[in-house]
Amino acid sequence: MQPPLSSGSKIPVVNNFMDPEQRLYFADGKRKVDYVLVYHCHRRPSARDSPDQHRLSVISNGSFPLRAAQKGPEEGKAERGEVSVDLGPADPAEGEKRMIREEFEANLKEAGLEMEHGSEHKAHGHTFVRIHAPWQVLSREAEFLKIKVATKKSYELKGEKGFAGTMNLVWQKLNQPFQPNVPQTQDQGRTKFLSHCFSRDKMHLYNIKSKDTFFDNTTRSRIVYEILRRTACTRTCQTMGITTLIAKGVYESAFPLHDGDFKGAESAEERNDRQILHDEWARYGVFYKYQPVDLIRKYFGEKIGLYFAWLGVYTQLLIPASLVGIIVFLYGCATLDTNVPSLEMCDTMQNFTMCPLCDGACDYWELSTACSTARASHLFDNPATVFFAIFMSLWAAMFLEHWKRRQISLNHSWDLTGMEEEEEHPRPKYETILLQKRQRKMRNQKKSKNEHGKSAVESGESRKDKWRQRLLSAMTTGIPPGQEKLTWRDRIPGYFISISSILLMFGVTFSAVFSVIIYRITVSALMAMSTDGATKANIRVTVTATAVIINLVVILILDEIYGTVAVWLTELEIPKTETNFEERLILKAFLLKFMNAYAPIFYVAFFKGRFAGRPGGYVYVFNDYRMEECAPGGCLIELCIQLSIIMLGKQLIQNNIFEIGIPKLKKLYRTLKDKEQAPSESEEQQGRVRPQWVLDYGLEPFNGLTPEYMEMIIQFGFVSLFVASFPLAPLFALLNNVIEIRLDAKKFVTELRRPDAIRAKDIGIWYNILSGMGKFSVIINAFVISFTSDFIPRLMYQYMYSDTGTMYGFIDHTLSYFNVSNLKPGTAPVVSNYPKEVTFCRYKDYREPPWSPDAYQFSKHYWAILAARLGFVILFQNLVMFMSVLVDWVIPDVPKNISEQQKKEKAMLVDVFLREEKEKLQLIQSLFSKDVSQASSFPSNKRSLQQPPLGHGDHCFPRPRGRAASFSQFSRQESVSPWHETTRHTAV
Amino acid sequence: MQPPLSSGSKIPVVNNFMDPEQRLYFADGKRKVDYVLVYHCHRRPSARDSPDQHRLSVISNGSFPLRAAQKGPEEGKAERGEVSVDLGPADPAEGEKRMIREEFEANLKEAGLEMEHGSEHKAHGHTFVRIHAPWQVLSREAEFLKIKVATKKSYELKGEKGFAGTMNLVWQKLNQPFQPNVPQTQDQGRTKFLSHCFSRDKMHLYNIKSKDTFFDNTTRSRIVYEILRRTACTRTCQTMGITTLIAKGVYESAFPLHDGDFKGAESAEERNDRQILHDEWARYGVFYKYQPVDLIRKYFGEKIGLYFAWLGVYTQLLIPASLVGIIVFLYGCATLDTNVPSLEMCDTMQNFTMCPLCDGACDYWELSTACSTARASHLFDNPATVFFAIFMSLWAAMFLEHWKRRQISLNHSWDLTGMEEEEEHPRPKYETILLQKRQRKMRNQKKSKNEHGKSAVESGESRKDKWRQRLLSAMTTGIPPGQEKLTWRDRIPGYFISISSILLMFGVTFSAVFSVIIYRITVSALMAMSTDGATKANIRVTVTATAVIINLVVILILDEIYGTVAVWLTELEIPKTETNFEERLILKAFLLKFMNAYAPIFYVAFFKGRFAGRPGGYVYVFNDYRMEECAPGGCLIELCIQLSIIMLGKQLIQNNIFEIGIPKLKKLYRTLKDKEQAPSESEEQQGRVRPQWVLDYGLEPFNGLTPEYMEMIIQFGFVSLFVASFPLAPLFALLNNVIEIRLDAKKFVTELRRPDAIRAKDIGIWYNILSGMGKFSVIINAFVISFTSDFIPRLMYQYMYSDTGTMYGFIDHTLSYFNVSNLKPGTAPVVSNYPKEVTFCRYKDYREPPWSPDAYQFSKHYWAILAARLGFVILFQNLVMFMSVLVDWVIPDVPKNISEQQKKEKAMLVDVFLREEKEKLQLIQSLFSKDVSQASSFPSNKRSLQQPPLGHGDHCFPRPRGRAASFSQFSRQESVSPWHETTRHTAV
Repeated sequence: MQPPLSSGSKIPVVNNFMDPEQRLYFADGKRKVDYVLVYHCHRRPSARDSPDQHRLSVISNGSFPLRAAQKGPEEGKAERGEVSVDLGPADPAEGEKRMIREEFEANLKEAGLEMEHGSEHKAHGHTFVRIHAPWQVLSREAEFLKIKVATKKSYELKGEKGFAGTMNLVWQKLNQPFQPNVPQTQDQGRTKFLSHCFSRDKMHLYNIKSKDTFFDNTTRSRIVYEILRRTACTRTCQTMGITTLIAKGVYESAFPLHDGDFKGAESAEERNDRQILHDEWARYGVFYKYQPVDLIRKYFGEKIGLYFAWLGVYTQLLIPASLVGIIVFLYGCATLDTNVPSLEMCDTMQNFTMCPLCDGACDYWELSTACSTARASHLFDNPATVFFAIFMSLWAAMFLEHWKRRQISLNHSWDLTGMEEEEEHPRPKYETILLQKRQRKMRNQKKSKNEHGKSAVESGESRKDKWRQRLLSAMTTGIPPGQEKLTWRDRIPGYFISISSILLMFGVTFSAVFSVIIYRITVSALMAMSTDGATKANIRVTVTATAVIINLVVILILDEIYGTVAVWLTELEIPKTETNFEERLILKAFLLKFMNAYAPIFYVAFFKGRFAGRPGGYVYVFNDYRMEECAPGGCLIELCIQLSIIMLGKQLIQNNIFEIGIPKLKKLYRTLKDKEQAPSESEEQQGRVRPQWVLDYGLEPFNGLTPEYMEMIIQFGFVSLFVASFPLAPLFALLNNVIEIRLDAKKFVTELRRPDAIRAKDIGIWYNILSGMGKFSVIINAFVISFTSDFIPRLMYQYMYSDTGTMYGFIDHTLSYFNVSNLKPGTAPVVSNYPKEVTFCRYKDYREPPWSPDAYQFSKHYWAILAARLGFVILFQNLVMFMSVLVDWVIPDVPKNISEQQKKEKAMLVDVFLREEKEKLQLIQSLFSKDVSQASSFPSNKRSLQQPPLGHGDHCFPRPRGRAASFSQFSRQESVSPWHETTRHTAV
Repeated sequence: MQPPLSSGSKIPVVNNFMDPEQRLYFADGKRKVDYVLVYHCHRRPSARDSPDQHRLSVISNGSFPLRAAQKGPEEGKAERGEVSVDLGPADPAEGEKRMIREEFEANLKEAGLEMEHGSEHKAHGHTFVRIHAPWQVLSREAEFLKIKVATKKSYELKGEKGFAGTMNLVWQKLNQPFQPNVPQTQDQGRTKFLSHCFSRDKMHLYNIKSKDTFFDNTTRSRIVYEILRRTACTRTCQTMGITTLIAKGVYESAFPLHDGDFKGAESAEERNDRQILHDEWARYGVFYKYQPVDLIRKYFGEKIGLYFAWLGVYTQLLIPASLVGIIVFLYGCATLDTNVPSLEMCDTMQNFTMCPLCDGACDYWELSTACSTARASHLFDNPATVFFAIFMSLWAAMFLEHWKRRQISLNHSWDLTGMEEEEEHPRPKYETILLQKRQRKMRNQKKSKNEHGKSAVESGESRKDKWRQRLLSAMTTGIPPGQEKLTWRDRIPGYFISISSILLMFGVTFSAVFSVIIYRITVSALMAMSTDGATKANIRVTVTATAVIINLVVILILDEIYGTVAVWLTELEIPKTETNFEERLILKAFLLKFMNAYAPIFYVAFFKGRFAGRPGGYVYVFNDYRMEECAPGGCLIELCIQLSIIMLGKQLIQNNIFEIGIPKLKKLYRTLKDKEQAPSESEEQQGRVRPQWVLDYGLEPFNGLTPEYMEMIIQFGFVSLFVASFPLAPLFALLNNVIEIRLDAKKFVTELRRPDAIRAKDIGIWYNILSGMGKFSVIINAFVISFTSDFIPRLMYQYMYSDTGTMYGFIDHTLSYFNVSNLKPGTAPVVSNYPKEVTFCRYKDYREPPWSPDAYQFSKHYWAILAARLGFVILFQNLVMFMSVLVDWVIPDVPKNISEQQKKEKAMLVDVFLREEKEKLQLIQSLFSKDVSQASSFPSNKRSLQQPPLGHGDHCFPRPRGRAASFSQFSRQESVSPWHETTRHTAV
């Protein structure tokens, strides 16, 4: 048996050829490593010595209070033996850091953690501090953190009977191939164990087989992390928490360990969780399967578990959406040849002579030349699209409801119900600024005092002391000192910069969109002036394609820039806590990225072609170039092209290049660098198994879920906002997500250090963003259908203007007349190749004909159709909103079986406790009655049984259980114990 | 000293001249009466005997299991002494009821309650069972119910400093006269006591001065009520809870006692809570003061406290709304003489000849005769109204936000945070139906068995037994037996009747509205045909006034009917729990009453005059009568009249007649009836003070808050839905509510029995209804402004059609031309007194003139204005919705000081517990170290201090506190105690 490790004892030598199973343990092979702290050690010569041995008892600034005074006498004694002097740190900052580390680690030990030092990565001088949490620390913290654990009590989950039961069974059978091959945990089976907050008073409730494995690795590391977070460093650096220390550079990083290697399990039974996750989740081969969400949660914690669960729900619900989208698209294809408007457009017999699209250079043209765009347009702009838009709005509402339910189910099965929000410590940055503020304040106070005759040196020292005392008192009580906090005054510069930068970046986005417009206008004008026939024929295709690609590139570049800027801006605002920081960051990043991704699409949907003017009165920009117009087939087809290219391009490029390529490159670079620096070491290491902490240190640190969520939310925007114009968007999103899930999974399992397991009940602000987007999508889709598509004019024509009640004549109806003689001098086609003599040409608008008294004004039809369009918007918006509310209302937030289970569990718990109480009472009573009957004649009165002798009972009770024991305390607190009362009563 | 009361002892004689202070106590003058059960006792001759003495040991149906078998031996013994036979009940049902009562009360005693019987109301044979909860019951239940109580630990509420602090102080000073004169409770002062769930383990935490007064009366009665609710009656009636027993008629009623008389306190200091409430709350004299919400909650419980708090917040927020409303109205008054359209209308020089309003009987008329309505219309239909509508929509959002915050503050100061929903028992009706269903099922099963040769009698009995057993097992575990519950199949008839009845009643409402329309049309047509000049001149006034009054009467009558029908329908749906019942009832009643109150208003706002047709093409109903049109001044003024009369009439009549008059009448009737029945008793009683329970029994029972809320919600509708047409609505609502609060207060304090104190965190479904109405009001107001008022046409005229950019010529623009020769034969005025020859007459519409190619079609202006109207609706709706979301988002739900206090309290609690833990640990350690140092040489190792000897410690520890004591249990549960481990380590 190995001797226990204590700070004063010798460092153990790391086994060179350790058993792979043992790589997760202390050198004694018994105690599990729950957490690792890493710091860089610059002293090369004495790298083999533990830094523990270097303690500084004399510190330069002289204000180091005697450590022993703060501690118990025994501790002080114990410590004095360890003190050794080493005055040769590499640089002064390094020395200070070491002091901080020493104090911090001493405090950790005081909190009950056990530690082991070692510097395996010698060449780089990295030292790994391995931390182990023994059982009493675990149990104490589990009680404080109110961690729920399974009790012995279990109950059967009753399956439904009858038809519903059969259906359920069939469904399960059908679903079998899609279930991941993961060992069944208790929740998935037919029995469910009751869970209850861990309490050391109620140890008999829990099924504790072994104290080493009762808490799983994730819980263990969470507990250690919690201690690391709240442990303070009062003497050396006046701060608390490992995050601050990492920010100060005292430690390089801190992370829990992975469960082992993700490769190389011999048999399916012996796989550790990481291997199971790798085989059953992080593989493209299992793309069609459900995710093992419970296992993900068990391994990575609730927050990451919720992300993947959310992603799963979203992807799953994309399946029906894409199916309907495909059907709508197919409907468009099927009706292509029976669609009257596009037939009319392609009909060369009708021969509409269209007005030239620009001044001078452009010629008259025949409408039938735009036949192909009209046909393509019909694919997306058909009555089914309206249905699809309504469907997708309800789909969004349904998705949110479904997720709410799923979240509650998960909360239930992950025992998160009733979880309270945890107290958060301020961020390092906030603390620093606060410190500066206080110091400034005090300096000012001192200054005024100094003028009354005190020495600056003295006051400086006493100030420091005072501040330290205040901090000390704050640390011990856990309450921040006084009312000192950052007010809006301190934040005003931050807010100001933030808002102005955001406005500036909006400006950048808009000017980017505008530049692309200018590009399109000028290039098409230049190409139109070219004499080359081939160039001319392909104007629209060339210009559109190049412009969209430019747009895409700009979006991708700005996206990266905005991400960085958002972080910077949020830092400037000095948010207090990490949650606060995250929320602000998300909001900013979302706003910027949303604008960036959607600005060009909004332009095409609602502005393009609306300010182009009419023949003879075109609108010009820069005096020279005409505002661009939509293709004759309608703006919807352009919107569709724009949307599909940006969506696909963004996803493909971001997924492939940014998410796969760049990490690969980074890794390559790191490996190369490592090899360069320590060619000898890698050779040396080849022969032996490296410990897990060294392997994990080689991985990328985890940087939060924000980018993952952000990507998905922007995608959700593509799926919901403009879905009326591009019914295939859900399909592409689905395809992307199927890959995305496995890509993310691979990243989490193989490429990242294990993240700290963070408890979370919900996906936080993302839900609000999703729901806001869902609401916004209703109005956007309403406008797309009524203004961008030709749905309303077609409807109006068919039911109001057409004489036959059919669509025949629709094209004629949408085209206004223009008298060629009204063209201003110099704007008529210079060279006209048009075969016919033209007196009237046509253009797409509802305006009065030249022979009307108010020629070229908007016609009555224009206003009527406008009214219809607006009416449709109101109708659509309110109808869909109402239906969404209905969906929200009809689908209960808490699934029925969950609420029933919760009730049942509550009743069972109360039952367990009541029974316990009763047993206890009976035991006391029987003892008591024996007692009393010996002393006096006991009247057989029921009432005296009702008033059990609660006090003093434990004297004659060798081992009172839980609550019974507390009766002693009860009686001690009372002036007259009920027992006395009872005796009095019975004595009468 | 009085001997304790037990069921077997003699009944105490009630003191005839009891001290008023003692009226709330048992006959011993010591034990407080916490609850009273009342039942009617029919046996006149032996009325003076306690019914307790009549126990039936032989019961007719023979299936009565031996009671002793279920109980402990001693209890059985105790009981056998009491058994006495009485076989002469007045009727068989009465005997059964008595048996149930006996069992129920025995079970209550088993639960620890103490009871006293008495029948003071002899003449009527009412027996009052007074219930007292002793300390051990209170403390046990308080722990189960997780009732939070104040601990000894308190902290100072820090006031703000600097400018904010000064402002706060000034505000407090200004507010002083409006504060009710209520003794300061701790929460209102500067210190706040931490509160914590009551736990008998932690008695030292609480400041227990006297066990009799530690729990206030409300808490005591709540605890008793909780026991009454869950106590089962398994032998005699297979049910549980006092509500079922009341429903079955076993008890007549059950209520907690008031704190004493509400009159007659000598000095302000000695007032009891009821007197304080009466003086400082339930008086019209204090109408300008805040309500003593904390005291209301203390006296009546959280649910009623929340109602009054909500009413207070609503009334308070009506003040700014009415102020703005008055300003808007005054603006209308002030601009009356400068308003161009009404000036033009009143200008007799312009002389528009208007077309006749009906066929034959009506003559041409001059527009200037409608001058007065036009002027009146301007009072409400001016640009300020648009602003007011936006303001009120935001006001509604603000109100909801404000209430949310207030609710959270109240939750905090009332210690409701973290309150879990309580398990509810099924309603009696539900249980009965479920029982019937089960019996039916079992009978069917038995039937099929019987066919295989069993006697029906046997099976019937065994069925009963089986069912009883099952119920017994269910009662003991608290889990409903099996999956037996009512499914949708059982409820289908209920739902079907419900839905069809609601549709029917909608039909009734609509036909009522339609009848009034018919009334108006026919009466005005008849009056128009009259030859009397005076009649003719007053047509519109007479018809409108009578019609509105008819409407009002119909609404009031239907309101009452619908209230009753809603209850009946909800009963049919067999909701499971009381909450469920309440929600369904509220939803139904709200739907019906909402439709009823608003249908006529909706008609006037959006339909009246829109289907009237045009001259020469009027729309007729019943072939004879023209559809009615709005007054020439616009529909808004009619809407305003309708709204104001219905709102004011409804409030005045419902408040005065229904709420004050009818209860008075009822009371009068009861007093008369009482006098008639027992003239002797009232004389007899005059000389002596009646006990509180007799006084309280004479009051009206409490019937829930639904009617109170409903009234306010319908009023909220008047204030928010059509506020654009009647800016004075908030003012009238405010006046009404100031009275309403005191009226309700009077009712609760003086006229009702004390309601059971029910815990509630929020106002439940009412909040959703309010928020739904707030949202609905946005779209309604948008439509009122754009369609009912002339706002949009005026705007369009001024900025698009007017040549001068002013409003001059607007009236001319709104009137279309009609060629008199186009009148169909027989529709021209029969006798025309019009002074001029008419070729063209004018009518209010946007149609093409007679000389246009499509004469009398809607003109281009019509469509343009329609588009503008619709555009305005979209703009208004989305703008206001966006602003509401912004308001919602900007105002945090949890007030900042509350969230800070919560954090502080949490930190302090953790601190208290941690310190306790530490002290305990140190104590153990010191004892342990002494122990060990005696036995062996104790190494001064810090680690062993970290691992305290958790087990066995209590042996050498005479009175372990709280958790320390539980270590014994801890060690008992484990295979290897940490103590062993520690010794092993230290021994190495």
